[in-house]
Amino acid sequence: MKGFFITFEGGEGAGKSTQIEKTKSYLESKGRKVITIREPGSTPIAEDIRNLLKSVRSDDRMCDTAELLLMYAARAQLVNTLIKPKLEEGFDILCDRHDLSTIAYQGGGRMMNMEDINAIRNVVLKSFRPDLTVLIDVPPKVGMARARNRGELDRFEISNADFFERVDKAYHDYAKNHPETVAVVDGTLSVQEVSEQIIKNIQERLDV
Amino acid sequence: MKGFFITFEGGEGAGKSTQIEKTKSYLESKGRKVITIREPGSTPIAEDIRNLLKSVRSDDRMCDTAELLLMYAARAQLVNTLIKPKLEEGFDILCDRHDLSTIAYQGGGRMMNMEDINAIRNVVLKSFRPDLTVLIDVPPKVGMARARNRGELDRFEISNADFFERVDKAYHDYAKNHPETVAVVDGTLSVQEVSEQIIKNIQERLDV
Repeated sequence: MKGFFITFEGGEGAGKSTQIEKTKSYLESKGRKVITIREPGSTPIAEDIRNLLKSVRSDDRMCDTAELLLMYAARAQLVNTLIKPKLEEGFDILCDRHDLSTIAYQGGGRMMNMEDINAIRNVVLKSFRPDLTVLIDVPPKVGMARARNRGELDRFEISNADFFERVDKAYHDYAKNHPETVAVVDGTLSVQEVSEQIIKNIQERLDV
Repeated sequence: MKGFFITFEGGEGAGKSTQIEKTKSYLESKGRKVITIREPGSTPIAEDIRNLLKSVRSDDRMCDTAELLLMYAARAQLVNTLIKPKLEEGFDILCDRHDLSTIAYQGGGRMMNMEDINAIRNVVLKSFRPDLTVLIDVPPKVGMARARNRGELDRFEISNADFFERVDKAYHDYAKNHPETVAVVDGTLSVQEVSEQIIKNIQERLDV
């Protein structure tokens, strides 16, 4: 039996890592085999690409197109060498960020041409999509304050407030247009309440 | 006055590096400012991507799509941050491999879907093309013997003879379809004779 591919999306400080762990525990309590991964990364080559994306070189500023292609190179490697084979083996896969992050950050945040993004996306993913995407909804200001308190600010996070407002809008626009596969949960609630919302969505939408 | 973008293509052992140096000397003797670069690479970030492409990991085999996207990520960075600005400043740029290598190696050699390659190419390059491409034509067996003698065999070169026959065919098919911008020179001649052929093409085709 094929496993489920469930992705977790949301701005910085939305609580994705915590909720992935709680979802994993729930699925395992149902006797399922679960793998947790993150994007970009989670294979040796994809992690090398992640390091390249995360590093800031003083002697070379990465152009938006290179960033987009590196994101999809890491995704291609992960989907082709890990996600698809493991789903076939029956594992459920919980992924911290996936394709919707590119739509939100590169498309919304960086305002890259969506036709360009879709052209690359079509080459890399064809019709492959998550069975369920959990969008943990936290207002950008709340999420940024949480991330700042953790001392986690990288290349993507050293940007202005407008950037994160655009990311947030792109997330919600996508969710509105794909209600059958995207579940929006209120990330300002307690960890336990958010987890209950996520499990409810999994129970209602997937045959778990 | 805008500079000329001239790319050098051909299989392994075609003598591209030698001919680039000789072409540089010729153009400089005409009072032109010349920059020589290579693909993938030639900016700090593009060289990082090159290292990733050239390394063989025992724990992860790079999928063809990731390889293609890394090639174009390096190309995007080079074209956007170096080639285009320097051409505008009036420099001639001589580039060891460029887009036609992807068409020959990934398209011909690896038999990747040309529609996929063209989709990515269109995002990265739009209508940007070299003013002249010099294809140094050497039969695959001759080129491979030369490269083997130099002890240069990397990820792309550790392949079978069929691979290089397909690369060669893709090069020639492209040249046949783009006679106005691709000059095929006979790479089995002496270094001096090949250089004379290249300079003759530059004189006839570009306003040097």
